[in-house]
Parts: sequence; C-alpha cells; structure tokens
Amino acid sequence: MKTLLKNLTIIPVTEEGLHFTGDILIEDRLIRRIGDCSNEKADTVRDCTGLIAIPGLVNAHTHLSMTLMRNYKDTCSNLQEWLGEIFPIEDRLGDEEIYWGSMLGLAELIKSGTTSFADMYFHQWMTARACKEAGVRGFLSLTLFGDEEETRKRLSSIRLDDELDGDLLRRDLAVHAIYTCSEDSYRYTADWAREHGAIVNTHLSETKKEMTDCLEQSGMLPAFWLDKTGFLDLPCYVAHGVWLQDEEVKLLASKGVSVVHNPSSNCKLASGIAPVGHFRKLGLNVALGTDGASSNNNLSMIKEMRLAAMLSTVSTMDVGSLRPYQILEMATVNGAKALHAELQIGTLEEGKKADIVLINPAQANMTPLNDIFSALVFSLSENNIDSVYVSGRQLLDKGRLTTIDEAEVCRNVARCWEKIRKGE
Amino acid sequence: MKTLLKNLTIIPVTEEGLHFTGDILIEDRLIRRIGDCSNEKADTVRDCTGLIAIPGLVNAHTHLSMTLMRNYKDTCSNLQEWLGEIFPIEDRLGDEEIYWGSMLGLAELIKSGTTSFADMYFHQWMTARACKEAGVRGFLSLTLFGDEEETRKRLSSIRLDDELDGDLLRRDLAVHAIYTCSEDSYRYTADWAREHGAIVNTHLSETKKEMTDCLEQSGMLPAFWLDKTGFLDLPCYVAHGVWLQDEEVKLLASKGVSVVHNPSSNCKLASGIAPVGHFRKLGLNVALGTDGASSNNNLSMIKEMRLAAMLSTVSTMDVGSLRPYQILEMATVNGAKALHAELQIGTLEEGKKADIVLINPAQANMTPLNDIFSALVFSLSENNIDSVYVSGRQLLDKGRLTTIDEAEVCRNVARCWEKIRKGE
Repeated sequence: MKTLLKNLTIIPVTEEGLHFTGDILIEDRLIRRIGDCSNEKADTVRDCTGLIAIPGLVNAHTHLSMTLMRNYKDTCSNLQEWLGEIFPIEDRLGDEEIYWGSMLGLAELIKSGTTSFADMYFHQWMTARACKEAGVRGFLSLTLFGDEEETRKRLSSIRLDDELDGDLLRRDLAVHAIYTCSEDSYRYTADWAREHGAIVNTHLSETKKEMTDCLEQSGMLPAFWLDKTGFLDLPCYVAHGVWLQDEEVKLLASKGVSVVHNPSSNCKLASGIAPVGHFRKLGLNVALGTDGASSNNNLSMIKEMRLAAMLSTVSTMDVGSLRPYQILEMATVNGAKALHAELQIGTLEEGKKADIVLINPAQANMTPLNDIFSALVFSLSENNIDSVYVSGRQLLDKGRLTTIDEAEVCRNVARCWEKIRKGE
Repeated sequence: MKTLLKNLTIIPVTEEGLHFTGDILIEDRLIRRIGDCSNEKADTVRDCTGLIAIPGLVNAHTHLSMTLMRNYKDTCSNLQEWLGEIFPIEDRLGDEEIYWGSMLGLAELIKSGTTSFADMYFHQWMTARACKEAGVRGFLSLTLFGDEEETRKRLSSIRLDDELDGDLLRRDLAVHAIYTCSEDSYRYTADWAREHGAIVNTHLSETKKEMTDCLEQSGMLPAFWLDKTGFLDLPCYVAHGVWLQDEEVKLLASKGVSVVHNPSSNCKLASGIAPVGHFRKLGLNVALGTDGASSNNNLSMIKEMRLAAMLSTVSTMDVGSLRPYQILEMATVNGAKALHAELQIGTLEEGKKADIVLINPAQANMTPLNDIFSALVFSLSENNIDSVYVSGRQLLDKGRLTTIDEAEVCRNVARCWEKIRKGE
C-alpha cells in the first residue's frame, strides 16, 4: 500500500531554515522517499499543492485523560492547592472514564497537529486501547506514587503490556515527583527499569517550593537528589525543570536527560518561566509539552509553541533568545530525542515513521506567509491543520477526524464527568 | 427586519460570573430584547441551542493594513530596529495595498470573533471602504507623524470623512508616539481635536528606552510630558503602557484615559510585560489589543486573551492577579470604555448595537466546559467561533465568511505584497 503526497512545501526539521518543494512517498507505515517522486507509482496519489508538510508534533509531557477535568477548579492559587482539588477526583476514575478521557484528548491532539505524546497517568490499558483505535502514537508511562511498597505493588500488576503493539505504543515508567515519592521508590523503579529495558521520566523542579524544600530536607538540589537514586542513569526525561540551576542543567545534559518545557502550565499554576534558551546554551535538549488539559487548559502544541516563543523573548528581553526554527525543533525533533525515539520520529526523513502534518496556509491568518518559520510559530491556528498522518494512516482529512467520532466522544465524556462529579 | 436567536447561553459581561440561558432579539441593528423572547415574532428565527453568546470582541489597538507585512523581518532585536525595517515599506503603500491589507485584516478579525477595532494607520479612506463592505465596526485614527507643520498638513487634507457612515465608522486622531512627534504636534492635534470633537490616542511608554529617553531629555515621565500638551484632557486612549509608573497610572486614571494592553507585541518585540493587574487596582481601565499583525503575528483577540492571562499570572506569581472574567472584560466592555463607545458596544444589553459572537463549544478542545470563563480564556480556539454579527448583520456563519471572499483577498494581498517588495 503506497501513498504519494505531491507538490508539498516540505520542512524536514533536519537543518535550520531548510524548506523545499517536493513529494513524499509513504509505504508500509514509513516515509519511503522525499523529494522528486515523479517516477514513483502509488495506490493513492494526492496533489498537495499549497500545503506545507512538517513532522508530526511531539507532545513530550501530558496527562491525557485529565482532559476530563478541563477548566475544573482551575483558579487555585498554586500547584499544591490545585493538586489537593484534583487528587480526590482522580481516585474516582475507572476504566470507562479513562477510555473516554483518552479519546477526548486524542481528538484534540490530532486536530492540533500532534502525532505523538508522552502520557503520565493511570489505567493506561484503556489509553492504549484508545490510541490503537484512533491511530495516535503513545509513549505511555505507568505512573508510580508513594513509597517503595506501593511502587512494588503497582509494578507487579502492570496491565498495560498486553495492550501494546509493535508500531504505535511504548510502555515507559514515571515516578510522579520527589515530593510525592520516596527515595526508595525512585531506586526501586530505576532497578526495575534497568532490568526490563524501560525508559523513565518524572516531574522535576516544577516549583520554587519543590527546590527549596529539597534543599532544606536533603541539602541537595532536586536533580542531585534524584541522581543519587540512579534514576538519571537510565534513558530518562524530566518535565518542567522551571527552577533548575546551572549545575543541575549540566548534570542532566551530561547524562543525556532531556527537559520537557511546559510553558502554559508553568504560567497558569504560577510555577515560573523556565529559561529554556539558556538551558539550550548549556547543552541541554529541551522538548515541549502541554502538560494535562486541567492546568493549561488544552492540549494544543500550536498554542504551546507560540507561548514558548513569547515567554522566551520577554523573559530575557532578547528577541534572539530562541528563534522560531528552534521553537519548531522543540516541538518535533527535540521531543523525539527526549523520548529516545529520534530514530523513528521527529523529522521528515526517509526510513522514519510516516508521521506527517499538512498545514494549509491559504487563510487570512497566515497570509502573506513571508518567513515560514515565524508563520508556523506565531500565526498558525488549529484551523490551518489540514491533514494528519501517523504511520501513514490518515487521521485527519481537511480538518475532519477520520478515526474518531468527535460528537460521540463529547457526549460520553459529559456523561462520565457528571458521574465522577456526583461522587463528590 | 427582526432576527431572533433562541436558546443561547448568554454572557452579557455586565456582572462578574453572570451567564444565563435565553434568547436575543435583534431589530434595526440593535439588541432589542434579551431573555425570554418566546412571545416575540421575527423574520428570521434561529435555534442556537448549545451555542454561547458573548459581546463581540473589541480590538482596541491595531494597525490593520500591516497584515501585509505579516511575518516579514520579524526577528529584529528591538522595536527601533524593527521600525527601521518597516517604515521604508510603509512609504510604498498606496490605496490598493491599503484596501486589500484592510480586507485581509477584517477577514481575520471576523473569523476570530472581533467586531470592533481601533486602527492607527494611513490611507484610511480605503480601510473605511473595506469596513463598510465587510460590515466591521472601525474606529479609524488618522495617524500623525513628525513636527507641527507636517501635522498641520496632514490634518488639512483629511480624506477619510467622506467615507464615514453613521453606524459603523468613526474618525479618531492618533499622534504616533512621543519619540516620533514633537510637543507642538501633540499640542496642535489636541487643539484641532477639541475644536472638531475628535477622540485621540497615541502609543505611550512602550519601551524602557522611551521612558528613560524622555526622563533624560525632559526630566519628566512620558505621561507627564504628554499631559503638558493638553492631549490627555481630551477623550483619549493610549496603547502599550508597559513602563508606566504608578504616578503616571494614577494621572491617566484621573483623566479618564484608558490603556490598551498589547501582550503579544510587547513580548515579541521584547518591550516587556505591562503589570495590568496592578494598573487595574490603581483604578485604570485596561483594554486589550493585538497591535499590528507584523509584530504579533496575527490579529486574534482569542490568542491575546490567553496570553494576557498567562503573563499576568506568571509575572506576578499570583493566580488571582487577573481572573478569567476580568480578561474577558478587557477584551469587551473595557475596550468599549477605552474607545468612549460603551453606550453603543462592549456588552450584551438591550439598546446596544447587535455586535454578537456565537461560540460553539461542542468540540474536543472545549469539552467538558466546566468553568465557562476559564473555557473562554484558556481553551477557546478560532475554530470555535460559529457566528459573528455586527449591527445585526451576520458576517460569519458556521465559521464561513459571508461578506468577504477570503480566497480572492489572499490572492490580491499576495499580488500587492510582491509589488511592494519588488520596490526594494
């Protein structure tokens, strides 16, 4: 089964500033050829004149099913207070809620041009099921909380692995955070992950309080505290990193650990602005993520790119702090690197998975185009997303979902959410 | 001619937190009745079940035709350098360019739920023509530059007034900024405006450099320098205000002058973050605007509301600095107040112009809705804008423009822009 996309403006995100006119041949879930494919034959040929092809966006940190709690009690004064509102709701979530919450999140991801996401949540066998039905690539982290005993219990009863498939899904491990989990829990998880070849992640240095508490209690900065457990010696990525100090950034970079920047959530919960332009200069790989919809309050990487660019400039008072191309890297190839999946995704290159987003700039908000990278970071809206392919399967066609019945999902989410709220 | 919109969720923006289910009766360009209209008859009756009605958004500071320069040379290191790139281009703009640039801007405004805008630009007889054709409400400021002689010349050759109409358009006067115009120019304009009953505006305290230069050269802060010219004694609004000091804010508030917050432009050009929550507490009316598309790089008040909320929280580290409802006020009723048009627009109230935006939240990105104000500020996207009415005329229907041929506009803009660029 071959699909040929013809006459695109292609931004491969392999080299700063690179874009060219060409075709993309998709075969067996992969990008088989990029460039002039006029001699190629295919089962489906699509003239894409006027459209821009970019790698599917990589949302490198989210809590997918938290879409259920979108716009719920979101005026808390800080992260701790907000978690106090959210945790009791989460205790009431079951398989059905997770399934519909996941479907809701996937619909939003696809419509905003995201093809891969890293999920940190619970009941993920249901998220896995939703991903396979919707066709979205998921890096699903079983999430661990509490002490070693609790961690041991959760790890011994993984129900996710039966739902994995070879192409779309990977099971990672997440330990929630250093303020909710014990040192032994991180240690046990690290050992388990090493034994089972798992990739790990955690929240790190999200708030100033987390940093100062850690310093007070242990005399160490959070990344150093974490390093002691062996967690950072695994293939690893960490979320937020708002308050990372230079020596921590260098430590993470030296271990090949990436930070996922979550600007909306960091603003909304008053956590702070991560100086990610500075992090890059220190050699750290910085990816981008939306965090959960309940602290954002959406899952759009389009909004996240724009905010990342705006914050970078205004917080440094330096327009060159992060160029638009570098923001696009954060949302694509850097995400793939963070997830240790850069051989499969993150750029448009022959041999990689056919995770492709087609953008239609022929609307008022992207006219005239001028600088194509500025246009993608500053002018792009969700209504410019024309098509989305994941492993060559088309999930969005002229802005319409092909694998998800959005109205049905919204109905079921409303029903589930009412049930959960009535449990109060 | 009566139009009845039935079964809406109505947010009138007259009182914090207020929303209710009801109908809106439109007659003779006005909102004739809000609430239960089941006994009313109308020529057109529309069942709006599931839709949310808000007042049309008021973009209180923009340069409409600068959409022509969208994404052009937008990586300059600061405002002064960027103006150096933009001014030579502007010198080459003629009637045709302004017409198509205006149409492009209007298309974008309508699609993102904006019904009124305050424009500071040139050749505005062409913008006026475009507004009348497209049906958008414009507060069009003839823009003055340079010294008194230049100002006198421009004011004596106003070509805009013939194009005004009684309903949609108003001619205001703008003096560009204290660093491009002389004291006498402000004085002359103030006198002229007083004589002709005009409302005035200017850029004020946009950058730190503007403030420190003014202090160095005059010993006064910008607002006090401006006050000396009599400019602030007129009905007046000022844009940006990033670096206003408390005593300036109190001066402006005491004179009934409003500030228009332009968060995207202020970030993008590294001007800074205006502490608008603090301004409000000092009694200043704060409106919201996109600034021109060439420093934003779009005209979406949806994006502007979200950014204003994010910046307010993170710059104060206080989630309560500006509540979502207050952001919505900035984008509607406060804009109307800033423009001294609050008797006509800015809220949904009987007797006001029928400037109404209908939002369709039945998509993944606004499900579940939960807090309706958080949803509007944080979750809303352009694709949720279902319908736009200005003076009762429907300009957008299920997301489609009814008065503008978007493809034709994009084609003509591309042609005009190529011509302008070749002039280089």
